Amino acid sequence: MLSLASDYQEGAHPAIMERLVSTNLLRTPGYGTDEFCESAREKIRAACGCPGAAVWFLSGGTQTNAVVTGALLQPWQGVIAADTGHISAHEAGAIEFTGHKVLAIPHYAGKLRAEDVRRFCETFFADENWDHMVAPGMVYISQPTEYGTLYSLSELTELSRVCRDFGLLLYADGARLAYALACPENDVSLPDLARLCDAFYIGGTKCGALFGEAVVMRDPKLMPRFFTIMKQRGALLAKGRIPGLMFDTLFTDGLYLSLGRSAVDIADRMRAVLEDAGCAPALDGFDSPTNQVFAIFSDGQLEYLKNRVGYSFWERRGNRTVVRFAASWATTEDNLREFTEIIGGMPR
Amino acid sequence: MLSLASDYQEGAHPAIMERLVSTNLLRTPGYGTDEFCESAREKIRAACGCPGAAVWFLSGGTQTNAVVTGALLQPWQGVIAADTGHISAHEAGAIEFTGHKVLAIPHYAGKLRAEDVRRFCETFFADENWDHMVAPGMVYISQPTEYGTLYSLSELTELSRVCRDFGLLLYADGARLAYALACPENDVSLPDLARLCDAFYIGGTKCGALFGEAVVMRDPKLMPRFFTIMKQRGALLAKGRIPGLMFDTLFTDGLYLSLGRSAVDIADRMRAVLEDAGCAPALDGFDSPTNQVFAIFSDGQLEYLKNRVGYSFWERRGNRTVVRFAASWATTEDNLREFTEIIGGMPR
Amino acid sequence: MLSLASDYQEGAHPAIMERLVSTNLLRTPGYGTDEFCESAREKIRAACGCPGAAVWFLSGGTQTNAVVTGALLQPWQGVIAADTGHISAHEAGAIEFTGHKVLAIPHYAGKLRAEDVRRFCETFFADENWDHMVAPGMVYISQPTEYGTLYSLSELTELSRVCRDFGLLLYADGARLAYALACPENDVSLPDLARLCDAFYIGGTKCGALFGEAVVMRDPKLMPRFFTIMKQRGALLAKGRIPGLMFDTLFTDGLYLSLGRSAVDIADRMRAVLEDAGCAPALDGFDSPTNQVFAIFSDGQLEYLKNRVGYSFWERRGNRTVVRFAASWATTEDNLREFTEIIGGMPR
Amino acid sequence: MLSLASDYQEGAHPAIMERLVSTNLLRTPGYGTDEFCESAREKIRAACGCPGAAVWFLSGGTQTNAVVTGALLQPWQGVIAADTGHISAHEAGAIEFTGHKVLAIPHYAGKLRAEDVRRFCETFFADENWDHMVAPGMVYISQPTEYGTLYSLSELTELSRVCRDFGLLLYADGARLAYALACPENDVSLPDLARLCDAFYIGGTKCGALFGEAVVMRDPKLMPRFFTIMKQRGALLAKGRIPGLMFDTLFTDGLYLSLGRSAVDIADRMRAVLEDAGCAPALDGFDSPTNQVFAIFSDGQLEYLKNRVGYSFWERRGNRTVVRFAASWATTEDNLREFTEIIGGMPR
Repeated sequence: MLSLASDYQEGAHPAIMERLVSTNLLRTPGYGTDEFCESAREKIRAACGCPGAAVWFLSGGTQTNAVVTGALLQPWQGVIAADTGHISAHEAGAIEFTGHKVLAIPHYAGKLRAEDVRRFCETFFADENWDHMVAPGMVYISQPTEYGTLYSLSELTELSRVCRDFGLLLYADGARLAYALACPENDVSLPDLARLCDAFYIGGTKCGALFGEAVVMRDPKLMPRFFTIMKQRGALLAKGRIPGLMFDTLFTDGLYLSLGRSAVDIADRMRAVLEDAGCAPALDGFDSPTNQVFAIFSDGQLEYLKNRVGYSFWERRGNRTVVRFAASWATTEDNLREFTEIIGGMPR
Repeated sequence: MLSLASDYQEGAHPAIMERLVSTNLLRTPGYGTDEFCESAREKIRAACGCPGAAVWFLSGGTQTNAVVTGALLQPWQGVIAADTGHISAHEAGAIEFTGHKVLAIPHYAGKLRAEDVRRFCETFFADENWDHMVAPGMVYISQPTEYGTLYSLSELTELSRVCRDFGLLLYADGARLAYALACPENDVSLPDLARLCDAFYIGGTKCGALFGEAVVMRDPKLMPRFFTIMKQRGALLAKGRIPGLMFDTLFTDGLYLSLGRSAVDIADRMRAVLEDAGCAPALDGFDSPTNQVFAIFSDGQLEYLKNRVGYSFWERRGNRTVVRFAASWATTEDNLREFTEIIGGMPR
Repeated sequence: MLSLASDYQEGAHPAIMERLVSTNLLRTPGYGTDEFCESAREKIRAACGCPGAAVWFLSGGTQTNAVVTGALLQPWQGVIAADTGHISAHEAGAIEFTGHKVLAIPHYAGKLRAEDVRRFCETFFADENWDHMVAPGMVYISQPTEYGTLYSLSELTELSRVCRDFGLLLYADGARLAYALACPENDVSLPDLARLCDAFYIGGTKCGALFGEAVVMRDPKLMPRFFTIMKQRGALLAKGRIPGLMFDTLFTDGLYLSLGRSAVDIADRMRAVLEDAGCAPALDGFDSPTNQVFAIFSDGQLEYLKNRVGYSFWERRGNRTVVRFAASWATTEDNLREFTEIIGGMPR
Repeated sequence: MLSLASDYQEGAHPAIMERLVSTNLLRTPGYGTDEFCESAREKIRAACGCPGAAVWFLSGGTQTNAVVTGALLQPWQGVIAADTGHISAHEAGAIEFTGHKVLAIPHYAGKLRAEDVRRFCETFFADENWDHMVAPGMVYISQPTEYGTLYSLSELTELSRVCRDFGLLLYADGARLAYALACPENDVSLPDLARLCDAFYIGGTKCGALFGEAVVMRDPKLMPRFFTIMKQRGALLAKGRIPGLMFDTLFTDGLYLSLGRSAVDIADRMRAVLEDAGCAPALDGFDSPTNQVFAIFSDGQLEYLKNRVGYSFWERRGNRTVVRFAASWATTEDNLREFTEIIGGMPR
């Protein structure tokens, strides 16, 4: 059965596997102090145009979001996020477990609007009782968003400006960043992210690594003693070299920047197939331009698809269901062909 | 200057002060194990028609909400509350500090609708990814609400039924409970609360005590080792007899039930004065029937009022401001007369 | 039955009760923003010789220790305390609940030795793996200690020096501070505490108030947004004026400084009575010079005492039991006479 | 330069690398719901003689200890551990971050004595103030310990009995379990651990995997909703199949049981070399029989070794230093030969 349920179904990009094997019996010191990590850090700093940045490797997205948020916020602060943001909805309360509130505001195509953040802050500080309330300390966005949409450079610039006006830190979750960077309509580069955000992470798990996310922080002083905090939160790997080597490989010869191209291209063609079948666009007035593909099906159609192609449940809408397919660096032309055939044979 | 800014501006009901003085040099054991506490517990159990209930005395509302919520929820659970609920908005993240998420849903006149809670739960458990999300474990309401509105017995019964259908605990914040119980339109008694909620607290701070709230829990097994949890959260008073004696006094000769009557009566007349002046109702399609009085003023009117009567900022609405006045057990007919004169002289 | 089980058995000093009654119906703003609090703050600043200090009023000792410690420590830090310290042993894990480790080191007569703290820090930073460990961020002491013993000025000065050498904050728990200040052998004044510690609290609960502790912090910048943190931790009283008025009274005409004198004097005479009876000293090579009185009894003696005088269990030692009696501002000459008779009639 | 600094210096056992490569492009569902995980769980259950056990895969030791401890303890409970235990000393406060106290008691050759645990519990529950204190809820041990020592079957049986007598859960950290199982003097099998402990983990990171630890819990009801708790604590890997496949390989054809044999054998011979050189035993009256090798060197000797062989700093003792070498599944006869030569040439 064809599975397009997610972008974390396979192992790692073959270039990574080869290098893991060829270096397997080398001995390196632990906890990210090895040469692979150091090399990866240098390459990431270069790719981000940010030679002074701190770069840290963690294991997964929820872990990274929780550890970074917990390290950046003061005890009396919360983090502003879209109500559809991953930290708002799908991390089982990981942020709250660190003692902080997620201040959810309505999304617009999965994104926060700078003006909404500005209004939130203005209202907050105009409230005479604000010292009885959770102060906004940080803004969380994701690029691309949970809906696969992208912040434009001008949107990100405006959001960054609002954050600086109100003394908020700006943090971007880049779980699928490779698919943003590879998208033709994207105009936000790694150096833009490094310049406009206070911290962001470059996703590995969904972008070619076995696991791992690389946090980039322009000003290392924002997270003092982060090594110890990682240890305390269970996020410090003994064999830190493994994510180090994986990111070193991803940032060699531009692999990370190119990795998502075929996925975005295949996703575009999947969207066209679905639109022909009358099952897309499935979202409210916008669509994903990246590797995530949304479609809406009747119960009969889902019944047909069930044993033919793997998908992710998104939400129930009336008597129909929105589902998500995902293309990845590992999705093939054959997969697309099979998908096209399956959708072509689906009952209308 | 007349102050009607809140219902916690004075000390305690004179009956309490007299008894504190007359018992001052008695010696009793600490931490709530004394005879005053035991007597108060018995009287509260009797008033609630719940002879097996556990009764605990804490210091303030935010503390009580956070300690009880933290003790009742499992680590993977959050608490459903109205977006205007005290725990959602005005407790500086106290619930999140205990590691739990507040699952905010829109309010209706400050209240939760049973059908909204049902829909929330149905949607939650219909989501195939629900085990990546914070599960609802409890519903938080307040009686009266932050807007002074009341759950009717049928509304509370319906909410309780939904909670039991989905295995949620129901908890009521009674910071101003005396003003609900004294309100002519109220049909929810203490035994109703004890029967329909799993836990609730009887407010003392705003209802005649120097401080203190009494938690009533029908089934003591729901919060094992709560004494130790109170100690751990800084909520166990060494001289536990002080709140014990205060609640014992409040539950002698029906004082708690009658204490709020004059306040609700004065508040009704304040609302009439404000309505005559064109400044009320101030809320969206509903009004408070209890001791809180809402009004909306222009900037010019506020300027006039500023040095004449104390109020609480509620929210800015366009170029006008909603404020709240509060009557309490200590508000006098003289205060009402002065208020009437001030509003009478206000510029239109 | 005579009860000498603790120093928190009665209500408040009569001067406090009188003033609570006479001001009872005054209206003041909430949350410690009232004139009583402001006046108390000024008097405490003056008594501490520290005009720029921040002064905050909380409800009890465990709450104060946990909220202050949580506000002063960074996430990667813990607090050094004697293994017999209140936060180490008797606060039900309140410090750990805020996410911080208590780094317990052996006590010496209930006290920390400066040289032990120095050695702890030297060993810590000499350990090449220290960034995998909880860094010391603060030192907790109590004056008097849990055993009623006192730091001398030279001991406190030395401890303060070690703290500054290693960048640690020094915090003193003054739950029974009045009994230290009133003790003839004490040479540590309030200004000394304010100068040598970064923060300390002046105990009210055990020293004449109904409840309440006053935190004094030389440099307010050490705890930014402490008001909101108090709210978040359930430590902000709505009627903040109550502890404000109590501390204002305690710091009028030197009441706090004199309040403990009779207690210490009576305690001295209790110790003499017990020594005559062969039941004291009960501790290992040291004794309490303040209001706490330790004695060691056989099971037969305890049986005799059981219905005659209240005491606190301290610890079992072999087949005997160490107990603690406490004198307070409210203990009378009559109480002492009764105690003397009881001990006099005790079987040897 | 020869490096024997730790047992996590290399990648993974070649059998694992081969299988990771050969399965790399297979598509599986996420979060540990795949067939590799299921197969690994079955094999682990069989190896433990515990067909009903829950088996969970996490990333590293500190993470596993913190997540499991946090899930097993009630809010008022702490965990008893040796003062040298990993959770006591070297996890940067990970347990305290989850809100729980580590109740440290003195070790004996790195181990807890059953009689010490019994005495701790008896003293605790004999203390009349125990409800003001952190109750023991669990006992943490490691097999082998931080010093490489082993609990015998009779020691473990006795400890288990004490735990059950006092209602404590027993949890074993098996970070280096393969080296215990392979040790000739070991008499504790996997089924013994599963039977005598309530939970334990089988270490992967130090025993042949790239990373990963497998938690085994006899009674799955002890940790309800553990999947969601893992997610909340950042411990749920998207590509859960990676540790699943690694453990499946380790539990195929007895690899895990045999993997440590050469390491223990080499370590024995390293100890002999060090003893001949007068640098071992380095510990106080006991020695490690497993893969960790302790030695004590003068400053001059360390200077000589510095550029010849990698070691781990253990502790400073007077003017000498205790260091640790570690053999692993990947240590070779060549490594031993080189080590022997280096030590042979060391100044006395």
